[in-house]
Amino acid sequence: MNPLEIHRILRGKIRISLPVEKTDKEILSLLYTPGVAEVARACTENPENTYVYTSRWNTVAVVSDGSAVLGLGNIGPYGALPVMEGKAFLFKAFANLDAFPICLSETSEGKIIEIVKSLEPSFGGINLEDIAAPKCFKILERLSEEMDIPVFHDDQQGTAVVVSAAFLNALKLVGKRAEEVKVVVSGIGAAGYNIVRFLLDLGVRNIVAVDRNGILNEENPETCLNEYHLEIARLTNPEGLSGDLEVALAGADFFIGVSRGNIVKPEWIKKMNKKPVVFALANPIPEINPLLAKEAGAFIVATGRSDHPNQVNNLLAFPGIMKGAMERRSRITKNMLFSAVEAIANSCEPHPDRIIPEAFDERVHQNVYHAVKNSS
Amino acid sequence: MNPLEIHRILRGKIRISLPVEKTDKEILSLLYTPGVAEVARACTENPENTYVYTSRWNTVAVVSDGSAVLGLGNIGPYGALPVMEGKAFLFKAFANLDAFPICLSETSEGKIIEIVKSLEPSFGGINLEDIAAPKCFKILERLSEEMDIPVFHDDQQGTAVVVSAAFLNALKLVGKRAEEVKVVVSGIGAAGYNIVRFLLDLGVRNIVAVDRNGILNEENPETCLNEYHLEIARLTNPEGLSGDLEVALAGADFFIGVSRGNIVKPEWIKKMNKKPVVFALANPIPEINPLLAKEAGAFIVATGRSDHPNQVNNLLAFPGIMKGAMERRSRITKNMLFSAVEAIANSCEPHPDRIIPEAFDERVHQNVYHAVKNSS
Repeated sequence: MNPLEIHRILRGKIRISLPVEKTDKEILSLLYTPGVAEVARACTENPENTYVYTSRWNTVAVVSDGSAVLGLGNIGPYGALPVMEGKAFLFKAFANLDAFPICLSETSEGKIIEIVKSLEPSFGGINLEDIAAPKCFKILERLSEEMDIPVFHDDQQGTAVVVSAAFLNALKLVGKRAEEVKVVVSGIGAAGYNIVRFLLDLGVRNIVAVDRNGILNEENPETCLNEYHLEIARLTNPEGLSGDLEVALAGADFFIGVSRGNIVKPEWIKKMNKKPVVFALANPIPEINPLLAKEAGAFIVATGRSDHPNQVNNLLAFPGIMKGAMERRSRITKNMLFSAVEAIANSCEPHPDRIIPEAFDERVHQNVYHAVKNSS
Repeated sequence: MNPLEIHRILRGKIRISLPVEKTDKEILSLLYTPGVAEVARACTENPENTYVYTSRWNTVAVVSDGSAVLGLGNIGPYGALPVMEGKAFLFKAFANLDAFPICLSETSEGKIIEIVKSLEPSFGGINLEDIAAPKCFKILERLSEEMDIPVFHDDQQGTAVVVSAAFLNALKLVGKRAEEVKVVVSGIGAAGYNIVRFLLDLGVRNIVAVDRNGILNEENPETCLNEYHLEIARLTNPEGLSGDLEVALAGADFFIGVSRGNIVKPEWIKKMNKKPVVFALANPIPEINPLLAKEAGAFIVATGRSDHPNQVNNLLAFPGIMKGAMERRSRITKNMLFSAVEAIANSCEPHPDRIIPEAFDERVHQNVYHAVKNSS
């Protein structure tokens, strides 16, 4: 069966269902008028009661404007809808959360913030998805501050969590310490920006960030396309490198690509430090073909694809993180995210062909959930 | 069991469920990456494809700001949530529609319009609910015009449809014609405004509308609290009456109350025309106790309550109307609403204690749905 066919037969990947089997006058008088008036009063007096008497405690909005969907780019809210429905499907299948797709026809930073805030009474958590950088940074920052429910942007935080877990296990396998490695991050968008910040928190001192105009260098403002690039430039590149990805990779221990397909040549891998690690995560076409990277000497290769070993898959993180955060009913903190990083890293015995667990390993979701729920 | 208890045990009246039983790598590669990319492209190229490949075709938003909930008034979005969840429950139970509660913390007319419009890509229909008059009039009007999916405000249109059906059957029973009766409508809010307009369309010439400042009279602008009252004043009161509800009721054939409890005295019923009909629809306390109205000579009495005969219940109308409109994928027109009026009226053999069908009679929902779907 092909994707269009199965989508056409199912006519949608989520349904609404009811928690009672029979609908009669008696049950309606309790669940609707006149009985619901008492429940409504209780929820007005104390909005926390919505977590007791309604589905809100388990309900997540999957919000997108369709401005940066998968590898497809800015395809708008209608194209985004089947993807957000798919994400809602995953939340249900992997964390038993009731997620609902909200695809917005408004695309400005300010409007998205205003609209998502206004939806707070209906939801226990917000999962932002496929919203383009740089506007996604301010949207996540402001919603996290201004809403009283957990707000998570999977493309920023989810990817950074899973990459960090893979990074920690790869470090163990190559026998190096975070403080001594040089890491090149290619593509400073939603994912790359957060990966750099997570790596800094993990103790990495020598990060070289590369985007469209080459190595981000604070002395060279034209290498920075926005204020977030400038921030990253100030925090990275301690050697003051200038140039392209090839220059950046010379002597590097790690390549982490969240950029575009086929931009890394095998010769460049050969000029990396010994036991080089290559995360070529662009989807569907990696920055370098993983087989060529191995041939060129990469000790560990990871991709975003399911047909190669070491799939760096956000599905490892977002169901457990959202479930844990919703049960705490707290905002998502750095501590919670780093607890998730450790939980994922510790959910498998590292091996060069298995630096992170499989997403279909149910234990990992349980581990992430418990780690986030109980994190300090 | 009491309402709080059953709500606490259920922890919500709706759930998300999945249309497939097993979630494995293969199905995910079709429903999510990489397969969904093809579906996303198809929906971008033609947004109509969202009706083929996603749940949108069957998905309704139940939207409220909680500004006029049941008999409780302006209780806000948190208090509204269990009520909107209940409404979503009814859409599923009576029309198999997938409805989802959207309770908004924004309350201004302009913001509500903007937010609901921005949600259009996710939904196949909009059911507005419990939004206060007069702002609800402009909200319904503008959303109906500016959105390409059906928009329905149950408190306006749904109530007017069911009242009109009851009115038509009551006319038959008392042997009078619409053109010759005098109808008093008490309470010119969301429901009353639309009831007056529907009655005019049904051919009633002598309507007297009464609100807080007495009979609406265009010569007496202080009787009108807003522009909608002024509009009604111009369309009604052909005899130029001034005064209170008692004055209005003298010689009237019909009393239709959608106002407040216990405001009509039995003596006033005695001064109505012969075979008077009393619709005392305020909830939970009717404008006059139905037993007292009967004693005072009312030939037919209807209320909004399930514990008396002739319950004027919106549940007769909204599931079938929304289902029919969504299947047509058209805006909701006057013709569609009057087809629903006839379908409801014709779904029972009128009797003074049964002027409209029971909401648990499944045929009525089928009849309304078919009537709306096939209306000219």
